[in-house]
Amino acid sequence: MKFFSDNAAAVHPRVWEAMHKADVADSAYDGDALSARLDDAFSDLFGTECVGLWVATGTAANCLALAAMVPPHGGAVCHREAHIEMDEGGGPGFFTHGAKLMLADGEGAKLTPASISAVIDPIRNDGHQVQPHAISITQATEYGRVYSPAEVARIGSLAQTRELGLHMDGARFANAVAHLDCHPADVTARAGVDVLSFGCVKNGGMSAEALVFFDMELADVVRYRRKRAGHLQSKGRYLAAQVLAMVESDLWLDNARAANAAAQEIAGSAGERLLHPVEANEIFLILSDDEKDALRAAGFGFHDWTVPAGASGAARIVTAWDSDPDHVAALARAITAL
Amino acid sequence: MKFFSDNAAAVHPRVWEAMHKADVADSAYDGDALSARLDDAFSDLFGTECVGLWVATGTAANCLALAAMVPPHGGAVCHREAHIEMDEGGGPGFFTHGAKLMLADGEGAKLTPASISAVIDPIRNDGHQVQPHAISITQATEYGRVYSPAEVARIGSLAQTRELGLHMDGARFANAVAHLDCHPADVTARAGVDVLSFGCVKNGGMSAEALVFFDMELADVVRYRRKRAGHLQSKGRYLAAQVLAMVESDLWLDNARAANAAAQEIAGSAGERLLHPVEANEIFLILSDDEKDALRAAGFGFHDWTVPAGASGAARIVTAWDSDPDHVAALARAITAL
Amino acid sequence: MKFFSDNAAAVHPRVWEAMHKADVADSAYDGDALSARLDDAFSDLFGTECVGLWVATGTAANCLALAAMVPPHGGAVCHREAHIEMDEGGGPGFFTHGAKLMLADGEGAKLTPASISAVIDPIRNDGHQVQPHAISITQATEYGRVYSPAEVARIGSLAQTRELGLHMDGARFANAVAHLDCHPADVTARAGVDVLSFGCVKNGGMSAEALVFFDMELADVVRYRRKRAGHLQSKGRYLAAQVLAMVESDLWLDNARAANAAAQEIAGSAGERLLHPVEANEIFLILSDDEKDALRAAGFGFHDWTVPAGASGAARIVTAWDSDPDHVAALARAITAL
Amino acid sequence: MKFFSDNAAAVHPRVWEAMHKADVADSAYDGDALSARLDDAFSDLFGTECVGLWVATGTAANCLALAAMVPPHGGAVCHREAHIEMDEGGGPGFFTHGAKLMLADGEGAKLTPASISAVIDPIRNDGHQVQPHAISITQATEYGRVYSPAEVARIGSLAQTRELGLHMDGARFANAVAHLDCHPADVTARAGVDVLSFGCVKNGGMSAEALVFFDMELADVVRYRRKRAGHLQSKGRYLAAQVLAMVESDLWLDNARAANAAAQEIAGSAGERLLHPVEANEIFLILSDDEKDALRAAGFGFHDWTVPAGASGAARIVTAWDSDPDHVAALARAITAL
Repeated sequence: MKFFSDNAAAVHPRVWEAMHKADVADSAYDGDALSARLDDAFSDLFGTECVGLWVATGTAANCLALAAMVPPHGGAVCHREAHIEMDEGGGPGFFTHGAKLMLADGEGAKLTPASISAVIDPIRNDGHQVQPHAISITQATEYGRVYSPAEVARIGSLAQTRELGLHMDGARFANAVAHLDCHPADVTARAGVDVLSFGCVKNGGMSAEALVFFDMELADVVRYRRKRAGHLQSKGRYLAAQVLAMVESDLWLDNARAANAAAQEIAGSAGERLLHPVEANEIFLILSDDEKDALRAAGFGFHDWTVPAGASGAARIVTAWDSDPDHVAALARAITAL
Repeated sequence: MKFFSDNAAAVHPRVWEAMHKADVADSAYDGDALSARLDDAFSDLFGTECVGLWVATGTAANCLALAAMVPPHGGAVCHREAHIEMDEGGGPGFFTHGAKLMLADGEGAKLTPASISAVIDPIRNDGHQVQPHAISITQATEYGRVYSPAEVARIGSLAQTRELGLHMDGARFANAVAHLDCHPADVTARAGVDVLSFGCVKNGGMSAEALVFFDMELADVVRYRRKRAGHLQSKGRYLAAQVLAMVESDLWLDNARAANAAAQEIAGSAGERLLHPVEANEIFLILSDDEKDALRAAGFGFHDWTVPAGASGAARIVTAWDSDPDHVAALARAITAL
Repeated sequence: MKFFSDNAAAVHPRVWEAMHKADVADSAYDGDALSARLDDAFSDLFGTECVGLWVATGTAANCLALAAMVPPHGGAVCHREAHIEMDEGGGPGFFTHGAKLMLADGEGAKLTPASISAVIDPIRNDGHQVQPHAISITQATEYGRVYSPAEVARIGSLAQTRELGLHMDGARFANAVAHLDCHPADVTARAGVDVLSFGCVKNGGMSAEALVFFDMELADVVRYRRKRAGHLQSKGRYLAAQVLAMVESDLWLDNARAANAAAQEIAGSAGERLLHPVEANEIFLILSDDEKDALRAAGFGFHDWTVPAGASGAARIVTAWDSDPDHVAALARAITAL
Repeated sequence: MKFFSDNAAAVHPRVWEAMHKADVADSAYDGDALSARLDDAFSDLFGTECVGLWVATGTAANCLALAAMVPPHGGAVCHREAHIEMDEGGGPGFFTHGAKLMLADGEGAKLTPASISAVIDPIRNDGHQVQPHAISITQATEYGRVYSPAEVARIGSLAQTRELGLHMDGARFANAVAHLDCHPADVTARAGVDVLSFGCVKNGGMSAEALVFFDMELADVVRYRRKRAGHLQSKGRYLAAQVLAMVESDLWLDNARAANAAAQEIAGSAGERLLHPVEANEIFLILSDDEKDALRAAGFGFHDWTVPAGASGAARIVTAWDSDPDHVAALARAITAL
């Protein structure tokens, strides 16, 4: 009964099916018929013309996006607990050739116009200080929190005013949209987002994420840099097939809804233990060492988490598109029974 | 009847099968049981202890290998028609942070100790000139030529004498070994190769190549840099499964033999047209525009090639593990009939 | 009456004299007799064998040092107000190819073993998180604070235990040693410092700083990288002359003592206004806008500074080797009279 | 009697004088009155509005210029014997973050539209191949050859047609203009050059070169990158003073004429020995080992040079602004007497 992460789950049968259908020789790299369909698929999904490119990982997606917006001598504002800062092995420094991540605060790993301004306002506009060129936000955040359309729009407005690019790390974008029950453009294109890392791997895919460019000029340089970074796979059609399986039907939303529902069921059992409101598919909760031992002894797997002040222990529980309803129910009961 | 490239072929059924077997949740990244088996699988294959890491593309494999051997202020000798120089979009410059490819000559895109020395001997050992730190050779080469064990060993000996690392781009390593009918270590570990890019994608895989480190210390830094480059896939088990399907049986050799045999059949029809001896699965031949038109009209697909002096046209034909015997026979007949 | 910064002061007459003596053709770059003397000059000064290399700026010195200790995928711990983080235009990211500055706290911009550990202890040793490879401290700090020999030694001990390099940004090293009245090795070689950026420009030089390598192997790669960064001047003898004029006599200390004494005189007038103890040649003090206006109207030039909580304004005053005693006395009187 | 290089010569008295006049405290970095005068000084010199920035070395000037025109994934065409390729320690790879130098041929290290086209025409416009973004030519070349205004204009026209930037490495620009006896704009602004590395150090300066931007937008990013590269000296006024001493009078041309005249005198004695026409201040000539020994025994210092086919030895002789007329005459006589 594994609740470690959504990024080790199985691949959805319809994704497998789409990959098998791609198993006939076609043009290499992204010259195949499936890769060619991505622009239209995402334009349909978002209701606005955009460019879609596949890449293998969220780190590659995020870092290629940042590098398209931020010159080597510039910087990008992100939350100090953002994945690009904490868990991508310095990838942003690599892809941007040494640009700086400028770390801002915000509850639940959400940035606000105020927390962004607190970082960039004191920067003198001279060559001695690194200048900001972009903002990167995560939807849903590292704590499973979700930006509302209005919240994204306010950041988008700030970005426009300050002439900064706006990137959204959407490794769990589907979970966020499922939670918001809004049009996907409401928190992206219509809110000022220039480029979105659209996650599939955590949501039933195998090895394909997508970069969606609402600022389509940014895609031009990424086409060169994706290759340069060794991310232009020769059998790209298998990646395109995964992405299309997700977005040409409601699979991306259905999977996210399933994961979110499982998270809600567990959250319902956690009560006062919850460290953050549960809006996507992650549950952070206070658990003492004894309680964690008990749950693990009962067969539940999950990660420890940073212990907040005043608590004796904490854990992170993540549900996935394929979380077994029986396991979820069992975990909810077990937490209730602690 | 496509003879464009082996890198757009279908995926072998046993590779599919191995991927499906991996379709149960396991630890993410390379913490799963399959990824953990790579070291042993390659150590068995090469008869010597080594480290194996999966990556998605040959460009990533080659560039991570180079970056492990060459500091940003250094250089690596390669053939002026090597894939890393010609067709990786500047990837080596990216991964090495600006190190220099030092271009050497050699018939059939093969380097020799003499051609390497011609490049590095004139370099003064001072800070004004970039110093060589590695040699990279391709087995089989971009012209489908194969280094014998003795040829590799002579380059390995030079590398050792000059304290240079030795990398082998083995995108078509299987084809080379199949041609040589030697032990795979004969042209690698026993001949002084420090790190090998072991190709699978062109040989029936989908999205997995392997880096094999005979100098195992080099792997340490690559583990960090693979992640930093966005190449540490969270569902790495599907990549490991592909590689293991290849190397834990003779599949890698069987597929290469099939492709090589097809190439020989076509080569047999080409006679005086051949621009290079056919040793792997690529045929380069003189074809006039009219002849190319005739073949294309008959349904054969292939790429034009750089026209050598004195010829009116040239083409590249590539066979793959799944080249249809009927198509191969038909192409051989059609060339004979020109 | 300028108290803006020591980095715009005049050049000391004995530095001019040394430069003029160098005005005969000699070997280019660092092949001249003066450059060759640097190793010995610094070995004598520090009482231990070391390597000395000239560079033009403190940014170049600091960044070349960091890049010698930190691989592109690594990180260096520094204070969040360190010059390398705040005022070098992203130079560390450039020279290290994207390594990360890991920001630690500490009163007066001084790091402590505890504040360093607070940053590096939570880092998991896996490829997802950037690993620390070095610590960089500033002596005297950006707030004119000075590390005692014991304080440096405790950080040196931590660095050794954690296998981290230790760099000291000594743009105002002379001021610190003058304050401590200790042997210069007490806060460097004997305390675990691997490489020191030895400042001259702020202390009466024109265009030469020195890198002093107590870990002499680090110098090897810097020789290549100094050239690669465009910092190997062809008439390097004029830089060597400046450095030698400083360190082959007590000029470096005499100049620093003059600047420190001037700072003490001003500090004596500031009383409760002082934001930091004055240990080197910088005075940070609380001044309201009206008070600043009054001082400026009286002809004193200085920079505004970040206003601390509870105060209405603040300023930074910097003295230099050539601060006019009359100006200093006048400023002290003017502050007293506020 | 040293004829090794012009880059180790003494500093011209009027340059010293200008530096001494700058020896009063002023704003730091490039905020001083002298640095502020550079734009006007160069605009006057070239008869067109342009931006002038000081840097310490030709390598820094060249590499900052290239990095302003070429993205990390792009390339710049230069001669295969260009200084940026041969003698800058990989600086272009560093400053451009791994862009590629594309090596072209040409007699006397001069590029031609044909030799440039031979390099860039075969490049496919796809992400697999590095795309050219700029051309860099050297005036005078590494062999002391000079491009005429028409020759530069033809390359400028090609650059414009292909949408490539055009950089001129003018380490010996003064020598070239002195030879041509043309307006300096004839071989730069009017001929399509976007940015010029204007050399001073080889021509009587100490530690200052200038970047002159005819495409003034390129200067914006260089202001940030100069600092980031550690090249924004805090006492920049001493560099500005050197440059202004050169270009606000005819000193730059007078010095170059002196060096050129000395070279002509020596060339006149060399007759059939000359390997290249002598147009600037470098003489390349055939000298056997015995002849070189004889000259060296007579007190003449110079560098060996690559021996051309059919010759038994070769040497490079370089004159400078301060070459002693007696030494020059003596060398000419000695060569004649061989």
